[in-house]
Amino acid sequence: MRLVSELLDTAFNAESIAVVGASNSPAASGYYYMRYFLEYGYPGRIYPVNPRYEEVLGIKAYPSVKDIPEKVDYVICCIPAQGVPELLYDCAEKGVKIMHLFTARMRETGSEEVMELEEKIARLAKELNIRFLGPNCMGIYYPKRKIAFGFDFPLEPGKLGMLSQSGGLATIFTRIAAQRGLRFSKVISYGNATDISEADLFEYLLRDEETEVIAAYIEGTTSGRKLYEVLKKVTSVKPVIILKAGRTKAGARAASSHTASISGSTNIWEVGIREAGAIEVKTIDEMLDILTAFYFLGPVSGKRVGVFGGSGGQSVISADEWGEEGFELTPLPSKIQNYIRQNIPPMWWKWLINPVDISILPIDDFSSLKNFKNFIKMMMESPDFDLIAYNVTTCSPLPLELETANLSQCTNIVLDALEGETKPVVAIVDSGYLGIEDLEDQRWRFLAGEKSHLIGAGIPVYPSMCRAAKAIRKLIDYYQSPGNILKVGGKFL
Amino acid sequence: MRLVSELLDTAFNAESIAVVGASNSPAASGYYYMRYFLEYGYPGRIYPVNPRYEEVLGIKAYPSVKDIPEKVDYVICCIPAQGVPELLYDCAEKGVKIMHLFTARMRETGSEEVMELEEKIARLAKELNIRFLGPNCMGIYYPKRKIAFGFDFPLEPGKLGMLSQSGGLATIFTRIAAQRGLRFSKVISYGNATDISEADLFEYLLRDEETEVIAAYIEGTTSGRKLYEVLKKVTSVKPVIILKAGRTKAGARAASSHTASISGSTNIWEVGIREAGAIEVKTIDEMLDILTAFYFLGPVSGKRVGVFGGSGGQSVISADEWGEEGFELTPLPSKIQNYIRQNIPPMWWKWLINPVDISILPIDDFSSLKNFKNFIKMMMESPDFDLIAYNVTTCSPLPLELETANLSQCTNIVLDALEGETKPVVAIVDSGYLGIEDLEDQRWRFLAGEKSHLIGAGIPVYPSMCRAAKAIRKLIDYYQSPGNILKVGGKFL
Repeated sequence: MRLVSELLDTAFNAESIAVVGASNSPAASGYYYMRYFLEYGYPGRIYPVNPRYEEVLGIKAYPSVKDIPEKVDYVICCIPAQGVPELLYDCAEKGVKIMHLFTARMRETGSEEVMELEEKIARLAKELNIRFLGPNCMGIYYPKRKIAFGFDFPLEPGKLGMLSQSGGLATIFTRIAAQRGLRFSKVISYGNATDISEADLFEYLLRDEETEVIAAYIEGTTSGRKLYEVLKKVTSVKPVIILKAGRTKAGARAASSHTASISGSTNIWEVGIREAGAIEVKTIDEMLDILTAFYFLGPVSGKRVGVFGGSGGQSVISADEWGEEGFELTPLPSKIQNYIRQNIPPMWWKWLINPVDISILPIDDFSSLKNFKNFIKMMMESPDFDLIAYNVTTCSPLPLELETANLSQCTNIVLDALEGETKPVVAIVDSGYLGIEDLEDQRWRFLAGEKSHLIGAGIPVYPSMCRAAKAIRKLIDYYQSPGNILKVGGKFL
Repeated sequence: MRLVSELLDTAFNAESIAVVGASNSPAASGYYYMRYFLEYGYPGRIYPVNPRYEEVLGIKAYPSVKDIPEKVDYVICCIPAQGVPELLYDCAEKGVKIMHLFTARMRETGSEEVMELEEKIARLAKELNIRFLGPNCMGIYYPKRKIAFGFDFPLEPGKLGMLSQSGGLATIFTRIAAQRGLRFSKVISYGNATDISEADLFEYLLRDEETEVIAAYIEGTTSGRKLYEVLKKVTSVKPVIILKAGRTKAGARAASSHTASISGSTNIWEVGIREAGAIEVKTIDEMLDILTAFYFLGPVSGKRVGVFGGSGGQSVISADEWGEEGFELTPLPSKIQNYIRQNIPPMWWKWLINPVDISILPIDDFSSLKNFKNFIKMMMESPDFDLIAYNVTTCSPLPLELETANLSQCTNIVLDALEGETKPVVAIVDSGYLGIEDLEDQRWRFLAGEKSHLIGAGIPVYPSMCRAAKAIRKLIDYYQSPGNILKVGGKFL
């Protein structure tokens, strides 16, 4: 019997996929799986299966899996639960070893009749030597092979692996993570986990060379001990961030009606996650923030931060928000002070502290832009800072055209100064909670452009100092824990 | 001698304003104040003052305030500090009683020379019976009279009053608050508070009939006792939300170099704010979230919340996030259960709980859209819920055009069902942290449109359940404190 890991590799790298229940009706799952394969440009062969159609989306359909003339590596099952046992026999006959049961409305409904059916399916699959994801899940997203279960999924592969008990969560998460510059190696939505479990998937991502950081959304487990043992192995090699849902009474009730999960004791989960060396988060924003730090930064050696950008009030707020997370706003080192003294008028240089309020240090006050670049470079190279934070905010009273010209010049100089530097850098770019009219507004368009520009240059970007500080603190704490001295993002501590 | 409040009324309602140091050079403050008056359409008279110009932005300029042929109600001073004493004499001669000193680089620089000058200015103003805002501040924003100190400030007046020691913070805050649907009565950026203090401004907003909720950003005070006494008076009439910055050592240092503030003991501030009945926040996001609750909701009578929308994973997360803030996810009342039982197939109705996962309750499963509207109306009218939360998220696997059509139909039905209802309702609309390409993306455009639509209908909107829950919890706690049974948003508890 082949290992689950090998079978999952077969699924991800399938040369041929059958979509059972393929449909031309746009609201049907058997339609949209087909459509996404075609739109994203899946390079393998697709076989729609549905006795009611000659063709689905222009591709020849087959009445049954058995009728497909060639080998089938992976099956996506979109038919109602009642038809699954027969499909299992057909698949066995066809030599299929791994399937995805999108099919839902099973145990999670609480209906006894379908609970029995779900058990029957599990038994039968075992007898027939077929492993399956789900039921009640979205299956796999694998950008490298253009396999995706929703629109607006990025096609560039990345190094973040994710397992998610909820398909909806995986869907929305993939999209908002993409906006932070995160790209995925593999995402697996695994639903009721009737056969392949979260422990199997952690084990798989542990071995997967394309995955360097792991995110997980879990509602419950039926094998806590196994999960704990696997997690311990994984976290000694790759950072794992877990959002455990179903922490409250109402949450547990909702989890039961969503994926038939037994949420378990919140306290045991908290202790288990911590003891296994993983990082627990409580919200999606927190997960995104921490993943952004791990994805872009690698190890940060300490908590001495140099901050620049913004204006007066922003500097005060920055100082508080870093300070309250345990960071130290080191005074500007004397080498930098001397340099400033030689290049700008006395009133200014006496006045400059960390955070460096750029609004009192107009670029023009340096004798040339080169001097401003040198100043940034000295911040980057100073042994007094473990981390540099750059604040991009349109809070000045200047007319928009001047403000944006200044800021984009500043960003260009900063990126230029970063060339060849290795010190961790983080950027904070203001973001609004945009309404429809704001999408045409030049200010928000400018800020969205700055954010994209910085992420494109490999800088992690956060919407506030506070969120950056909280996330990077977790990163530092992680690397300062014994046993977590690991490879991340290709760097060693 | 006239009261500060009367003089501030003169400033806000000025028939004529002189901009001293008015300029045609776009980076000068004397340029942009002029430009904003013209662009926003200030209805009074504007007198640019600058001996070097015949005209500024096409308007006749005067060499000195004394040369202006008519009465001057308010003066904005944009000249360097050295010229201020002479200007004060000119203003006194002209009968000016209230001024705004934009003029900066004074005490906050730490330079002794300018510190003495600032003291001299304060003494002289007192002798000449002139009161002033600042120095080192942006002055006033008063949408009703089209007075604003930056671009992209909304022109519709609202009921939120704000005082801010930082002009940059006031500027960015005004813009992001506008996106939440908040509109301002008056904003006052007051900088070094050398004459008019934060206590004076609280006193003013207390009396101001256009202001119903007050936000404040404060870095320090020189008269803590007076501030405390005034705050106590204000909070017995209007809710006050305070962001006190300069809480850490580095923050205090930054505050000193920003507005020459003495930040004081963080503990004393915390206790003082709480004892005075105000709400302290630590971040701008937290301030926005709480203000949104106070601005839109008025009192909420309890913590029993009914949640609908989203899908399975979102329901679990929602339940946890409300639950962890002390809210109770009341089971669906039997009246609603009976209604559902009569209108949808058995497997569905047994399965429905609170949060109501709309993805398992397709609108089509009701015999008509009218039934779905009735269902929402029953949620609104049920005595078992103190608050209703509606979750708008594009997390389904459906093709975008179907997903957005479903969701916008749902929102229309919800808004229709809300007609005539008085129960507090909050909406959660997914928002990304948008990059430049996302601004053209149909998904984010749709969500931005939903957000604008809901806010336009008077519904407070949050980017996550968690943030909504935290904010509304503070609102409820506030109204449950003795002494805080107040008028807000025109409603009484």
